[in-house]
Amino acid sequence: MKKVGVAILGLGVVGGGTYQILTQHREFYQRTQNVDIVVESVLELNRERARALGVPSDKIASNIAEIVSDPDVNIVVEVIGGVDAAREYVLAALNAGKTVVTSNKELFCKYSHELERAAKRQNAGLYFEASCVGGVPIIRTLLDGVQANEITSMIGIINGTTNYILTRMNEEGSSYEECLKEAQRLGYAEADPTADVEGYDAAYKLSILSSLAFHTKVPFSKIFREGISGVSAEDIADGRALGYMLKLLAIGKQSEAGIEVRVHPAFVRKGHPLASVNDSFNAVFLTGDSVGDVMLYGRGAGALPTGSAIVSDIIYAATHTENKYSTFKNTAGADKDTKFVSDFKSAYYMRLTVEDRPGILARITAVFGKHNISIVELMQKPACEDGKVPLVIVTHETRELSVRAAVARINALEGVAHVDTVLRVVT
Amino acid sequence: MKKVGVAILGLGVVGGGTYQILTQHREFYQRTQNVDIVVESVLELNRERARALGVPSDKIASNIAEIVSDPDVNIVVEVIGGVDAAREYVLAALNAGKTVVTSNKELFCKYSHELERAAKRQNAGLYFEASCVGGVPIIRTLLDGVQANEITSMIGIINGTTNYILTRMNEEGSSYEECLKEAQRLGYAEADPTADVEGYDAAYKLSILSSLAFHTKVPFSKIFREGISGVSAEDIADGRALGYMLKLLAIGKQSEAGIEVRVHPAFVRKGHPLASVNDSFNAVFLTGDSVGDVMLYGRGAGALPTGSAIVSDIIYAATHTENKYSTFKNTAGADKDTKFVSDFKSAYYMRLTVEDRPGILARITAVFGKHNISIVELMQKPACEDGKVPLVIVTHETRELSVRAAVARINALEGVAHVDTVLRVVT
Repeated sequence: MKKVGVAILGLGVVGGGTYQILTQHREFYQRTQNVDIVVESVLELNRERARALGVPSDKIASNIAEIVSDPDVNIVVEVIGGVDAAREYVLAALNAGKTVVTSNKELFCKYSHELERAAKRQNAGLYFEASCVGGVPIIRTLLDGVQANEITSMIGIINGTTNYILTRMNEEGSSYEECLKEAQRLGYAEADPTADVEGYDAAYKLSILSSLAFHTKVPFSKIFREGISGVSAEDIADGRALGYMLKLLAIGKQSEAGIEVRVHPAFVRKGHPLASVNDSFNAVFLTGDSVGDVMLYGRGAGALPTGSAIVSDIIYAATHTENKYSTFKNTAGADKDTKFVSDFKSAYYMRLTVEDRPGILARITAVFGKHNISIVELMQKPACEDGKVPLVIVTHETRELSVRAAVARINALEGVAHVDTVLRVVT
Repeated sequence: MKKVGVAILGLGVVGGGTYQILTQHREFYQRTQNVDIVVESVLELNRERARALGVPSDKIASNIAEIVSDPDVNIVVEVIGGVDAAREYVLAALNAGKTVVTSNKELFCKYSHELERAAKRQNAGLYFEASCVGGVPIIRTLLDGVQANEITSMIGIINGTTNYILTRMNEEGSSYEECLKEAQRLGYAEADPTADVEGYDAAYKLSILSSLAFHTKVPFSKIFREGISGVSAEDIADGRALGYMLKLLAIGKQSEAGIEVRVHPAFVRKGHPLASVNDSFNAVFLTGDSVGDVMLYGRGAGALPTGSAIVSDIIYAATHTENKYSTFKNTAGADKDTKFVSDFKSAYYMRLTVEDRPGILARITAVFGKHNISIVELMQKPACEDGKVPLVIVTHETRELSVRAAVARINALEGVAHVDTVLRVVT
């Protein structure tokens, strides 16, 4: 039976989960995969933590050099996170001819070209299923499950923290700030939540997934990004009354016009499979030219789900000697002949505050008309104490730049109307 | 660039879709997969049909021998369906060293051992993603996406015909017979619908999927099977009032006690991801010991979705020279040390008709009590014209054999009560 030695860099949440899965399933993998996977070494500065997980003292390495020079280590698992040290360690492992399995979305998003070059030079494998959507095998699906298709659209709920916060806001009617605090208390959000709530984490993943789906490098810098920190309880409640659920979506589309990539909160029609993806669950809804709609759903984070993706990559690496890389183009930036669409099409939800005077509504709808924006639904709410009236409008599909221009024009209507919220709608 | 020659056996719905995908995407696969896939030959007795699809006359073979002796053919796609001819042709192709891609669930369910033996002997590949759940890459996911897990449970809606009929019954309140006729008119059901509505099709697929998930051969004969032809509009309406949707489920579970495999209609709690899988859509809800819950959703049938699975297998075969087979054990029947559970656990929905007399309810609940069945919900409906009262009962989780015994006892209560329906409930 083939024996495979693994080293784990970092025994945090995911590293600990990976260690636990590998040690508890050794006999299972011998029996079902005909491979003996052994943890040969871990790199963890907190030796107490390593010992608490049951790692024997002689398997705790002191530095990366010990690991990359160890002939018993075939596969290096990078789960330390961050970019600088992770990049250095991964390159050291690849340069030593070790196969690398990583969960590091920021690293892979920013440096895939450098890592793939090093891997190919040494004929080492490079796997990154765990970098996107936890245990859900979305990368394997894009590479080996729906690769017969031209993917035209990919809509994902790929950040668990924000989905947890938006689910709580929806179910409890609480404010963003309250729900963020609750998420932090439960460990779903970091003390500094910026990476999650402002959409950076989702954008790193979207860069990786859309590069695979569209067969070209889609750099982070091309992704339109807007977070959820400005979302109000009122908007969630009004959207729900209109039949929509608010989600932080990562959207990638490809058409004749080019590639469109964006991360932003959006209303999803109830009944759409994505609308019922709640709490910290994640999902990716793909559309291919032959397969039609496919959705993958599961846990996007956590020690064991993410560990499942890492160990599935380890087994794949141990049982395949070819197809070791993605089909990324080996570049840092986008191909010069790849076009990107920034004036994308969408339906929109808008909340305005207007003076309660005759003729205002006519002036507002005239602005929309001038910008070719047609209204599906208009909901005038009871006047506030200051006499102003909240107005909620949902539009047909139109263009982002038309909406921005219309909003600027309405805000300039001599103080009679103000656009408080603009959210996109997926129909 | 590697060139791969394909022959397609049968140009029916799926064969036609496969031909169309391959010819329209040739340049796309050259660019994205670095492989040139060419349809070298088709076997279709209806030459008119082949020509209507655009197949050049010189590519229409007259018999299987022409194809298996053609050195330009590397991969043979079997999409003729049925068992006898398909088995003969697939074996001929494998014996000639050709890789086979098939969508034939009945063939693979019944003869996987024979086909895999022939494939291994010749070092030919054998792929069958299209045999289960159309374009949804469930087999690739089991083999290469969640293989780090011990799968404990798999619940699928894996037959589009019955899901279409049940969705219509639910939405329109119509009878089984009316909805079956509508499905036949729309081409979702065959003139003889037995294979679909009695659960044979789902059971073939469950045999294949559970063999992969549980790493042992799960023969068709071990699957408990009950179809939807006895389902009434009343049961669907009453279940819905209680918060459930009726689905034909294929369930596979593995525990210390053994493997449990069954196909039957069952109520699914609203809010469960499977409850909103409607029309001809399919889904498989997996639970793994590390990954937790994962669901794959998509189109379970149709020319292009199933063609997507076939062509994804062709590309996989063309770009991988190893991992050509499943991990099925190479046997016709179950391993002798595999245990199967027939007295499975479930919650139950029952509809009874009882005489409107004092004391009846006490006698019925006493029977349940004696068989260790506890009741979650009891709904007494208005009396019918004949004075009898319909009673709907939902139980806590109990055992199949206890329910059967209790039903026999209630039916023997001297004509005072009769159990009209027993349906299982997934909570």
